[in-house]
Amino acid sequence: MSKPSIPKGTRDFLPEEVLNRRYIFNTIESIFQKYGYLPIETPVMESLSTLTGKYGEEGDQLLFKVLNNGDYLRKADQDALNNKDSKKLTSSISKRGLRYDLTVPFARYVVMHQNDLSFPFKRYAISPVWRADKPQKGRYQEFYQCDVDVVGSKSLLYEAELVKIYDEVFTALDVAVSIKVNNRKILEGIAEVAGANDHFAAMAVAIDKLDKIGSEKVAIEMTSKGISEHASKTILSSLSMTSLAEVSSLLANSKVGMEGVEELKSFHRFIDPIGVNNNIGLDLTLARGLSYYTGCIFEVTADDVQMGSIGGGGRYDDLTGQFGLKDMPGVGISFGAERIYDVMKELGKLDSIPSQSPVAILLSFDEESLNYAFRCAQHIRQAGISIDIYPEAAKFKKQMKYANARGFKYALIIGDQEVADQTLSIKELQSGEQQSLSLDETIELLKS
Amino acid sequence: MSKPSIPKGTRDFLPEEVLNRRYIFNTIESIFQKYGYLPIETPVMESLSTLTGKYGEEGDQLLFKVLNNGDYLRKADQDALNNKDSKKLTSSISKRGLRYDLTVPFARYVVMHQNDLSFPFKRYAISPVWRADKPQKGRYQEFYQCDVDVVGSKSLLYEAELVKIYDEVFTALDVAVSIKVNNRKILEGIAEVAGANDHFAAMAVAIDKLDKIGSEKVAIEMTSKGISEHASKTILSSLSMTSLAEVSSLLANSKVGMEGVEELKSFHRFIDPIGVNNNIGLDLTLARGLSYYTGCIFEVTADDVQMGSIGGGGRYDDLTGQFGLKDMPGVGISFGAERIYDVMKELGKLDSIPSQSPVAILLSFDEESLNYAFRCAQHIRQAGISIDIYPEAAKFKKQMKYANARGFKYALIIGDQEVADQTLSIKELQSGEQQSLSLDETIELLKS
Repeated sequence: MSKPSIPKGTRDFLPEEVLNRRYIFNTIESIFQKYGYLPIETPVMESLSTLTGKYGEEGDQLLFKVLNNGDYLRKADQDALNNKDSKKLTSSISKRGLRYDLTVPFARYVVMHQNDLSFPFKRYAISPVWRADKPQKGRYQEFYQCDVDVVGSKSLLYEAELVKIYDEVFTALDVAVSIKVNNRKILEGIAEVAGANDHFAAMAVAIDKLDKIGSEKVAIEMTSKGISEHASKTILSSLSMTSLAEVSSLLANSKVGMEGVEELKSFHRFIDPIGVNNNIGLDLTLARGLSYYTGCIFEVTADDVQMGSIGGGGRYDDLTGQFGLKDMPGVGISFGAERIYDVMKELGKLDSIPSQSPVAILLSFDEESLNYAFRCAQHIRQAGISIDIYPEAAKFKKQMKYANARGFKYALIIGDQEVADQTLSIKELQSGEQQSLSLDETIELLKS
Repeated sequence: MSKPSIPKGTRDFLPEEVLNRRYIFNTIESIFQKYGYLPIETPVMESLSTLTGKYGEEGDQLLFKVLNNGDYLRKADQDALNNKDSKKLTSSISKRGLRYDLTVPFARYVVMHQNDLSFPFKRYAISPVWRADKPQKGRYQEFYQCDVDVVGSKSLLYEAELVKIYDEVFTALDVAVSIKVNNRKILEGIAEVAGANDHFAAMAVAIDKLDKIGSEKVAIEMTSKGISEHASKTILSSLSMTSLAEVSSLLANSKVGMEGVEELKSFHRFIDPIGVNNNIGLDLTLARGLSYYTGCIFEVTADDVQMGSIGGGGRYDDLTGQFGLKDMPGVGISFGAERIYDVMKELGKLDSIPSQSPVAILLSFDEESLNYAFRCAQHIRQAGISIDIYPEAAKFKKQMKYANARGFKYALIIGDQEVADQTLSIKELQSGEQQSLSLDETIELLKS
């Protein structure tokens, strides 16, 4: 028998990890709910016709495809089979794939269920996705995404609401962050003013790399894509502006640019009276390469750990158009749940997560005390307290070893005396201190 | 563009369904935790070497297999390819599959992480699994399982604990159930006493069908498997016994049978002093065909709905042996989460689930009142209350239509007067009653 293993790029989680991850997910989820967002669930397996062509050619290669069941070769593309053409054969032997993100399934969902939903429709999803990326440190083939979106409204109130959600989540998780804000229309305005409006997409993709490769190389990339050297210079110097007033005078003659400025002003009219706990600021170098963003865009980085972006999002005009439903504007953000876990781990914040596992275990010495201990456990659980019990009257040393290995705070020890007195001996495992308490007193102690 | 769809046998869930399902899962989970069980998570994709051969030949056919990425035909079995032998080709073009249940991954997990775990190890998992069964009413290809197990102990205390978990969960969900109890060793004893001990497995499989096909056909099936007519009659007449005392005298000369009796007695010494809220009783016709059960077995049915079993489980001796780890006895139960949802729906219990979606929405009339409404929303959320806000000062009729469609209990209406007075007009949507309250009074109202 070969040693069991799991596929590369996937993970098992020990209970402590599951509980810590859930704490993060639950914190995020409870704030989503407070803002009136509702959960939806979509299948892990989607039709390949839904997924294919949505993530570019590279994305199509990274989709996990599920083999059709039964005698799948019977209906296979015989040409592809004879020519051993894997790529061509795939669509004839596989009609389902694992979801690659939560965005495309959401768009499909909105289109399919549009008559059951009221718009604006506010939804969130916290679920795993799959990508056949080369596994490496911090990158997995199966990982969680955490998205919150609203579709069916152009109101900038939602931009303010979503930024407030970022602010509140990271405050609750005790992770200091900076929230960068920009607007794609301002970038379009800058391209226009610089005379590079025909190359906006290439410009956005290049700007996105500023952090990584620096302004000189970004300039080279822009000129290589057909942007003039002069325009490239103008663009790069504009990007250092940090006040909306400056941007406003720069873009005074750009219609689209001024629309972007107005949108950010409207956003500020909502968010400023409320304020945020974290850093927030205009950052024109934020471009978010994804072409579907059309308005405000956001990105979040941790202040005290080098980890890249731990959140991002923005407004889009036409998410559902790809499935035949036009005029459904929306805005959404996502949380990089896996990276947030890594940030919190690096900052030592995972240790301060309140434990959801029991803090005490009952130990006994013989059948009578074991039965008494089981009844005590039942009373304690009825009081809503989580407790464990050692399942047999094994040697005391063995039981204590287990209690210590599991990391319980208390051992509740029950011997003849305790059965006779209807008491429990409470031993604090770290200090070794011991006291005798009634069952009610024990419940009070465990509650506190 | 073709209309989007999802694969047959899979489901999208609307928010209300998600919240109702979560309520059931969370109720079950919180009780698992109270009993000291801890969550683990395993990947959705497992190596096919882990899954194959664990569920019988039929099970192997029902596994969803994931196509290898890249040029998978290059390394494919050329003979199988040339002969168009789907079955033979599969293992050379697919090395991963979707998990079929939570039991085999659990066994693999225990073996792989045995050095990181303390035994007895108590774990639960509430997760989706995939089977390529023909979809039909109430049967899906992607569905949730909900398992709780403890491995590393033979103590009958755990049988009592798990039955108590059944009892507590169904009490919390307000579904009256009957818990059937039996022991495989007692069935072995009955086979022995009847002189059919060589045909125990066939006998167990046949008995399992008593509910469905009746005793005559079960008798025919047993004799067709080589059990004598006399033995078959003896077996069937024994199965009507309901008292352990009767069983005990029947099996006085069967060692294995008396072991089963002793186990049930031990189970009762734990459970009887505590008692259960639901019906519980010995049912010798309960056999649970799965061959890995070796001791106590359980099955749960709803009292007021015809739905088959909504839970089941039992003790096993050698779950991890298939992955090379011997001597790891355990016991576990599972909840038929999908069926429990259906039972609760049929009983009308889903309507009484406390709503987790917001009960109120803020409506406004112009930009100023919208901004004031947004600030009010923020105060209310800071008080921990979930609230929604209409995102623009649209026509009042449109806003009210949305508020009614979403099913909010209250609309908090803000006009000029409310902004001037710093108040809110609270309209109860069902009755139409309206009152004017301060923000603090509104928060008090929404809290209650």
